[in-house]
Order: sequence, then C-alpha cells, then structure tokens
Amino acid sequence: MSPRADAFARLLEAFERLPGVGPKTAQRFAVYLLAEDRMAAAQLADALGTGLQRIGRCARCNTFSESTLCSTCADESRDPSVLAIVETPADQQALEATLGYQGLYWVLMGRVSPLDGATPQSLGFEALLDRASDGQVREVIIATNFTVEGEATAFMLSDLLKRKGLKVTRLARGLPVGGELEYVDLPTLAASLRDRRPG
Amino acid sequence: MSPRADAFARLLEAFERLPGVGPKTAQRFAVYLLAEDRMAAAQLADALGTGLQRIGRCARCNTFSESTLCSTCADESRDPSVLAIVETPADQQALEATLGYQGLYWVLMGRVSPLDGATPQSLGFEALLDRASDGQVREVIIATNFTVEGEATAFMLSDLLKRKGLKVTRLARGLPVGGELEYVDLPTLAASLRDRRPG
Repeated sequence: MSPRADAFARLLEAFERLPGVGPKTAQRFAVYLLAEDRMAAAQLADALGTGLQRIGRCARCNTFSESTLCSTCADESRDPSVLAIVETPADQQALEATLGYQGLYWVLMGRVSPLDGATPQSLGFEALLDRASDGQVREVIIATNFTVEGEATAFMLSDLLKRKGLKVTRLARGLPVGGELEYVDLPTLAASLRDRRPG
Repeated sequence: MSPRADAFARLLEAFERLPGVGPKTAQRFAVYLLAEDRMAAAQLADALGTGLQRIGRCARCNTFSESTLCSTCADESRDPSVLAIVETPADQQALEATLGYQGLYWVLMGRVSPLDGATPQSLGFEALLDRASDGQVREVIIATNFTVEGEATAFMLSDLLKRKGLKVTRLARGLPVGGELEYVDLPTLAASLRDRRPG
C-alpha cells in the first residue's frame, strides 16, 4: 500500500513524460504545485487545455499558430523571396528581435537527430521543399544552430534545396560583437579567418 | 507583434512558474507537448485538474491525501507511540520501503529555509507540536535530511519537542552498508566514530 494518493501518483507520472524530467523533478513540481502554489497548478492545467484546443500549425511556416496563418506569414509587408529555416519558435524570435530580417520563415520544430527519432521524414523535409519551391522564394537562409545536430541538418537541407535550384546561404560564423581574438575559441576563430570578408 | 500564439505564450508562462524552470526549459516542455506528444499534454492537464480537485492533506500527518486520513494514518496496525518527522512524501516512502518502521509520520512538506520563505510558521510547527502532544506519542524520530537545512530544521524541532517532554531521536549517521573506511567522507567517518555502539 503506497502512502501516495492515487491522484498524486498520476500527477507524478504525467510530469515524468516531460523531456528531462525524472522522478525527483516530477516530485518537486507536484509538491510545489499542490502544497505551495495551487493557483499555478490551475493556470498550467488551463493553459494546457487551451493550448491543445487552439494551437495548431501555421499552414505556411509550420510554427505554432492559433489561426491558419501565423502573424508573420500573414504580414504582407514581409519579403516572400527570402525564407529562413530555423529549428524552433525561440530561434525565430531571436532572429525577429534583431529587426534585421524581413523575409519569411520555416520552423522545423526540431533538428535531425536519428537517436531521438528525429529524421528528415519526421521533421517534414518534404513539406519544407514544397514550401521553398513555391516559385517566389529565391534564397533560403539556413539558420539552424551551429551544434553538431544543427550542422548536420543544415548540410542535408542545403543539398536538397540546391537540387531544387535555390540559392542557399548559412548564417555567418565568426567573432561575436565585442569579441576579442585572444579569448575566442579556436574553431570560431578559424571559421572567422576562413570566412573573412572585404574590409 | 510576437510570432508566438497567445495561447502558446500563456503556456510558457504557466511552465515558468514551476520551481527551477526558466524560459528555455518552459519552451522545451511546451514545444515537446504541442509538437510531439499531445497525449502527454492532455494527461498532464487532466492529472493537474484531478489533483487539484481531490488531493488535500491528511488531517493527522499533513501528507497529501484524497481522504481525511491517508492510508498510513488510517492503518490501525501502526504503532501510534512513535512519530517520524520527514521532509517530503518521497522521504516517507523511502522509510516505508525499508519495511523497518511501524510507527506513524509527520510530513513537513519542506524544511526550514528562511531565504526561500520557509519558516517554522509557514511549515506549521504549531500543528506538528499539537500532533506530537496527543498523549499517545512517546518518541519522535526526526528524520529530516542531513543537509544544512535539514539539520537546522532538526535542531529547532528537537528543542521544541523536548520542551513538551517528548523523547526525541535522530536517524543515525555512519558508514553506509557496504561502505569502506578508506573511501567514506571525513565528516561521515567522524560521526560514525562519535556515535559508535556496543559491538
């Protein structure tokens, strides 16, 4: 006979399905919500319910959206000839925050990672290729992360997109703004040297 | 104009209220649930709703319970003369798993930690003292963790309970089963020497 209430065990189980959450963290979340902040528990239950009901995918860029087109894709002032491929909505937000990009996006919702079951098929590369071949897109900027998985994803995408006759670019690697040569890591400095530009 | 759907932003906000969850983790949870495992999202929403509705506190030991008394407190075969004070339901479960304890429990649902706002008042020391003074309890085993905060909690509780004329004990410190003197940390070995017992 467990001293846990059944409903409590079910709550732990539900939390443990979240990525990176094990029994200890699940317990911490559950105890916190039930003992210290029941308002937060109600808010989370409500946000999940509403989210499941309302949040689908943008038909044009694959990001989360409550309408057929997300606000970015619905914005007619954006330049439809440039398409940036990002891994997540957070990455898209980071690019938006620069105020330096006027084109449209494709949000992969992941990166190729066969060990986690994320394949070109499961990530919907087909839909992306269809999207990029709409006749309006001239340049595809691959803005996946510069991690091993992001680079692998970029490599595969670059190949597929070039075969469609599209111009493919990748975000520049190099020193960060304010960076000093003495302190930057070697691969970054090497990339910065290789990709040097006219001064 | 944010590219995030409103319902998505609200979901992130709700996740960020969990302890130790910042914007990155909230984003990871939300993207995972909405993009990869909507069943898990529904399960979590349901478990939270059910939990909020059904889970209260045991009137006798303060742990989570769906009925007035939890299954341990309702078990008449338990020995009401011994009361073990633990920090969390998980600690209680650990003691139960030893099959070596037949007494009852008090679950603090935390430990004294003024920086986190956990004071003797907020932890309900009054209710614990009332419980321990029921006339049946002869011995109180303080089974808080051997962390700085757990020890501070134990120290305060020991003082308060002794003033009520109760016998107060603390879990033994010493070498773990299978432990070797050469590899155990010094404070543990010192405690083990100080608390040596007749052989």
